[in-house]
Amino acid sequence: MIVNGKEQRTIWFENKSVFIIDQRYLPHRFVIEEIDSFRKMCMAIKEMHLRGAIVIGVAAGYGAYLAVSELVNKGLSGGKFIDLFSERVDLLKKTRPTAVNLAWGADRVFMQVYSNLSNANPLEVALREARKIEAQELANCKKIGEVGLPLIESIAREKGRVNILTHCNAGWLACVDWGTATSPIYYANRKGIDIHVWVDETRPRNQGARLTAWELLNEGVPHTVIADNTGGYLMQRGMVDMVIVGADRVAKNGDTANKIGTYLKALAAKANDIPFYVALPLSSFDLSIDSGEEIPIEERDEDEVCSVYGLSSDGEIARVRLTPEGSKCANYGFDITPGELISGFITEKGLAQSNEIDTKLTVPQ
Amino acid sequence: MIVNGKEQRTIWFENKSVFIIDQRYLPHRFVIEEIDSFRKMCMAIKEMHLRGAIVIGVAAGYGAYLAVSELVNKGLSGGKFIDLFSERVDLLKKTRPTAVNLAWGADRVFMQVYSNLSNANPLEVALREARKIEAQELANCKKIGEVGLPLIESIAREKGRVNILTHCNAGWLACVDWGTATSPIYYANRKGIDIHVWVDETRPRNQGARLTAWELLNEGVPHTVIADNTGGYLMQRGMVDMVIVGADRVAKNGDTANKIGTYLKALAAKANDIPFYVALPLSSFDLSIDSGEEIPIEERDEDEVCSVYGLSSDGEIARVRLTPEGSKCANYGFDITPGELISGFITEKGLAQSNEIDTKLTVPQ
Repeated sequence: MIVNGKEQRTIWFENKSVFIIDQRYLPHRFVIEEIDSFRKMCMAIKEMHLRGAIVIGVAAGYGAYLAVSELVNKGLSGGKFIDLFSERVDLLKKTRPTAVNLAWGADRVFMQVYSNLSNANPLEVALREARKIEAQELANCKKIGEVGLPLIESIAREKGRVNILTHCNAGWLACVDWGTATSPIYYANRKGIDIHVWVDETRPRNQGARLTAWELLNEGVPHTVIADNTGGYLMQRGMVDMVIVGADRVAKNGDTANKIGTYLKALAAKANDIPFYVALPLSSFDLSIDSGEEIPIEERDEDEVCSVYGLSSDGEIARVRLTPEGSKCANYGFDITPGELISGFITEKGLAQSNEIDTKLTVPQ
Repeated sequence: MIVNGKEQRTIWFENKSVFIIDQRYLPHRFVIEEIDSFRKMCMAIKEMHLRGAIVIGVAAGYGAYLAVSELVNKGLSGGKFIDLFSERVDLLKKTRPTAVNLAWGADRVFMQVYSNLSNANPLEVALREARKIEAQELANCKKIGEVGLPLIESIAREKGRVNILTHCNAGWLACVDWGTATSPIYYANRKGIDIHVWVDETRPRNQGARLTAWELLNEGVPHTVIADNTGGYLMQRGMVDMVIVGADRVAKNGDTANKIGTYLKALAAKANDIPFYVALPLSSFDLSIDSGEEIPIEERDEDEVCSVYGLSSDGEIARVRLTPEGSKCANYGFDITPGELISGFITEKGLAQSNEIDTKLTVPQ
C-alpha cells in the first residue's frame, strides 16, 4: 500500500537479507530494519518489530531460511544439519505462543528442506519455499479483498456511506500487503465507494491508533480513531454498518482467537444486528482444535498496561506511566469470539459461516 | 477513605472556601485545591478537577453557595439578587451536560434560597443546604455499602475469594467518601472478606488506572488493572464473579448512562451469566425520562483520545501523542446500558431491579 506516496510492502528479501518495517516506531517514525541473522529474526518476532499472524508466518519462513543459511555456512550437512535445523525451528516456533502461522511458516520451510535433503541444495530449497509463502500470502490478501468487497458494496447500495468498525491492526502491516480486515476496505476505497472506518485504538499496544490509523491515513481512507470502549455506543446509535476484524487462529467450530477486546465488539454487534466479519487466510484456521477453549492465550508483560508509548512534546518516543506505583496490571493478549457471533469468514476461497468451515473451505491440515 | 494512612474526603468546606482533591494529578501527585470563587468552581467542574456524579452534585451545591456569597458581597438583594443568582445557577448547570446531579445540587440550593428569600439570610440558607447535600450524599454512600455488602458475602460463602470487576471510578473520589460501586467493596474489605478487584483502566481519561487503582492501593484492597478490552475474556474464563459499576443517570426503565464502555461489560456479563450491579444514590435516577434514548451523550475533546497523560521517566506529568498527526479521533463520554442487562441497582434505599425503580424505590422527583 501507499506510504508517503510510494508503494511499500511490510517484508521483503534482497541480497541475502530480509527487510522489514520495524513497526514499533509507527506512526511517529518510519524505520526499515535489515535482518541478516536467525537470532535477529527471532528477536524481531518476539519483541514485535513485526506483528500480525500473516507477516509472522512469512517472517518464520525467512527465519527458517536464515537458520539454514547459517548452518550451511558452518559447513554442516546431513543428519547433524537437520538435527540443528530442527532445534532452531523449534526455537523460532516458541517466539510467540498464539499465532498458528508462526509454526506453519517455519514447518513449511523445514519440511521442504527435510524431504529434499538428498536431492537439492537446502539453501535454495529454503529460500524458494520462504518466497513461495510470501507470494501466496500476498495473493491471498488480494483475494480476501475481492471476496469482501461485495459485502461493502451491498451496504453502500442500501445506505450510501458505509461505516466499518475494525479492531487492532489486521492491515497490510500485519501481512505482506493489502491486509486481511483492511483488504476489502482498500478495495472499496480505491473503487470510490463512500466508506468511513472507526478504528479501535486497541489497548494496551494501540495497534489501531498507531498502525491502522497510519495505514488508512497514508492510503487516503476516511477514518476516526476511538477508545476501545466506544464501539458499543456507536452500534447502539446506528453509527456502525459492519465490523471487519482479523484473526490469529480459528478453531473448527469457528471460535476465533483475535486481539483482546474483539469478543466485546462481537457481542455488541450481535445485540445490535450488525454483521460481524472475520477476514483471514485459510492458513489461520486450525482444524486440529475443535473449539476456542483449546487455544492458549498469551499473557504478556504487565508493563504494556501500566504504561504507554507515544510522541512527547519534544518529538521523542517516550513512555509514560498510567497506573500508581504499586498497583499490579494483567495483560492477556487475545480473547475468543464464539463462532456463533460471527456472520462470516472472508477468506481467499470465499465466504463461509462457522458451521461451513470444514465443508465449504478447503483448509490445509 | 485512607490516603497515606490518614482518613481523607474528596470535598469539604472550611473558612468560607471549598476544598477539593484536584484529581487531574492523581495517582502521581496528591493536590488539594482551594476554591474561593464561583468562577473557580465552574472551571473545576468543567475542566474535571473533580468528576463523578455525586461529588459534582455536592460541588454544584457549594458552587451555588459561592454565587450567593459573591452577590451578597456586592450588596444585592431581592429581585435583582434572585435574577442574577438564577443566571449563575444556569451557568453552573451547563458546565457538564450528562450528570443529573449537577442540576439537582444547584437547584436544591437555589430553591431553598428562593423560597426563604423574605425570611432568612440567603448566605446562611445556601451554606446550610450545600452542607446538607454533602452530609446526605456521604450517608447515602455508606448505606449503599451496607446494601451491597451481602451480595459480596453471599458469593464469598459459595466461592471463597470474590473477583469483582469495575469500570471507571465510581469510588470515593467520585463522591464525598466511600464511593458508590466501591462502597460495598470497602465494606467487604474492612470486614476481612477475601476479595480481588479487576480495574478497567477506562480510556480515554483512565479514571480506573489512575483513580480507582490509587484508591484501592491506599485502602489496601487487592486489585489488578486491565485494559478495557480484557473484561470479556476474564468473564469467559470464569475469572469474574460479579460486576459493580456506578451511574451518571438512570432512566425510569433502568437504562443507565455511565462511562463509555460500561455497556460492553454488561453485554459480556449477560452472555456469561455474571451478575451486573449498578450502585448509585437515588439522586442519580431521572424519572422524568422514560428510557436511555433521551439521555444526551457528552462529546468531549478529541485530544483525550489522540493522546494520554502519564508520569514520564523524569518524574513529570507529561502528555504523549498516540495517533498519527492527521488522523481524527472521536470522544463520546458515556454509553447507555439497557435496563434488562442490569441485575440490580444498589441504592441507599435497598436493592431494586429495572422494573421496580418507580415502585420499590422512592426516587425524588
